[in-house]
Amino acid sequence: MTDNREQAIFEAGIKLGALYHQWVGTPVSQRSAASVESAIEQAVILQPFVEEITVRLDRSLMTENIFGYSELSGLMFDAEIVTRVGFAYCRARLAPQDGYPLMRIMECHEIPSVSHHG
Amino acid sequence: MTDNREQAIFEAGIKLGALYHQWVGTPVSQRSAASVESAIEQAVILQPFVEEITVRLDRSLMTENIFGYSELSGLMFDAEIVTRVGFAYCRARLAPQDGYPLMRIMECHEIPSVSHHG
Amino acid sequence: MTDNREQAIFEAGIKLGALYHQWVGTPVSQRSAASVESAIEQAVILQPFVEEITVRLDRSLMTENIFGYSELSGLMFDAEIVTRVGFAYCRARLAPQDGYPLMRIMECHEIPSVSHHG
Amino acid sequence: MTDNREQAIFEAGIKLGALYHQWVGTPVSQRSAASVESAIEQAVILQPFVEEITVRLDRSLMTENIFGYSELSGLMFDAEIVTRVGFAYCRARLAPQDGYPLMRIMECHEIPSVSHHG
Repeated sequence: MTDNREQAIFEAGIKLGALYHQWVGTPVSQRSAASVESAIEQAVILQPFVEEITVRLDRSLMTENIFGYSELSGLMFDAEIVTRVGFAYCRARLAPQDGYPLMRIMECHEIPSVSHHG
Repeated sequence: MTDNREQAIFEAGIKLGALYHQWVGTPVSQRSAASVESAIEQAVILQPFVEEITVRLDRSLMTENIFGYSELSGLMFDAEIVTRVGFAYCRARLAPQDGYPLMRIMECHEIPSVSHHG
Repeated sequence: MTDNREQAIFEAGIKLGALYHQWVGTPVSQRSAASVESAIEQAVILQPFVEEITVRLDRSLMTENIFGYSELSGLMFDAEIVTRVGFAYCRARLAPQDGYPLMRIMECHEIPSVSHHG
Repeated sequence: MTDNREQAIFEAGIKLGALYHQWVGTPVSQRSAASVESAIEQAVILQPFVEEITVRLDRSLMTENIFGYSELSGLMFDAEIVTRVGFAYCRARLAPQDGYPLMRIMECHEIPSVSHHG
């Protein structure tokens, strides 16, 4: 069976995969980027097992098309999430690496539960 | 050939179809609904030929699942858009009708151009 | 009021905007492209007022990332749709122009209805 | 640090979260369901660490709207994925449970590597 730590890892993967595919393709510009970051954060934090989420979109990649805006692409994301299951935490990240929007587990840890005497 | 009025209609259709499929499925709750409304509006207004866009999500449909949130569905949308091409305007709307998220042209008009004497 | 021709134009816009934002971001490769084309066509043809839809994805743009696949992007689309409302038809297209995935009305026409004597 | 087993779990989560949000909202009917299943499978199998993917959409939920089609919703999915990292495998599933489209780890195992005499 899987334990809390493994489920926290699984949940972190789910949330990163989900946010990527929900939001890629959204029209975006340097002016509107903050509203998209906020909306993504507020959508992700609703989901089960999410403790923290921060999303930063790389404005330098928002080059304007002939109509003056851009489209949210995978490489623009720098998102970090902390999931928790029981006392196990997982911190994971979506950020560009070698030209690919990579999702990685950054660290996991478990808080020792209070000992039960007896 | 199509004229400005027809292109304004076409553009209104594009934007309503786009926003629907970009955003359906987003995790949402009554608390986060305003951030989603704002993000959609700011994304749509970036696109060419859009003069105005207002998005209102029906919070009464945001019934909580077992994890306490909901998902943006088509029937939650009440969106109204005004597009403009040249001096032709089109106002269109996405709103529920008979249990279907219907997109409709509400009205179009053209502002008579200033006459050029000569 | 709008007439059939205008509604056919509106419907064509809706469908092109919808398909774009529904499918952008899908993992794709030259091998899987045909299955995506077929799935898009079969999804679009279900929708009201659609008479014909053909989707061709530009395989030359499917450059492989470090994991050997690509992601469906706007410029890969060459889609042509025919909508019909009453006896009015509209043919519209999504295809790259000047580096932008442009949606255009190609032509509209109305079939004269049979005259009713009397 | 995380090991292969944990990364396989993470990757399974990513893929299930991604496919859900990529495809929810797609127009679908009982006739077109097979094409969507196939396109999803062919899109997921492209992604790194995916060994197997099967997607079955529940046709009984595809109730027709006034225009005769339905929209892909979360509860329609029954998807099972096997990911592999090194010699560690993870099998996970997306399927309805208590009215929620739940993603679960089904089992993980590692194939013992061949011993290296020395």
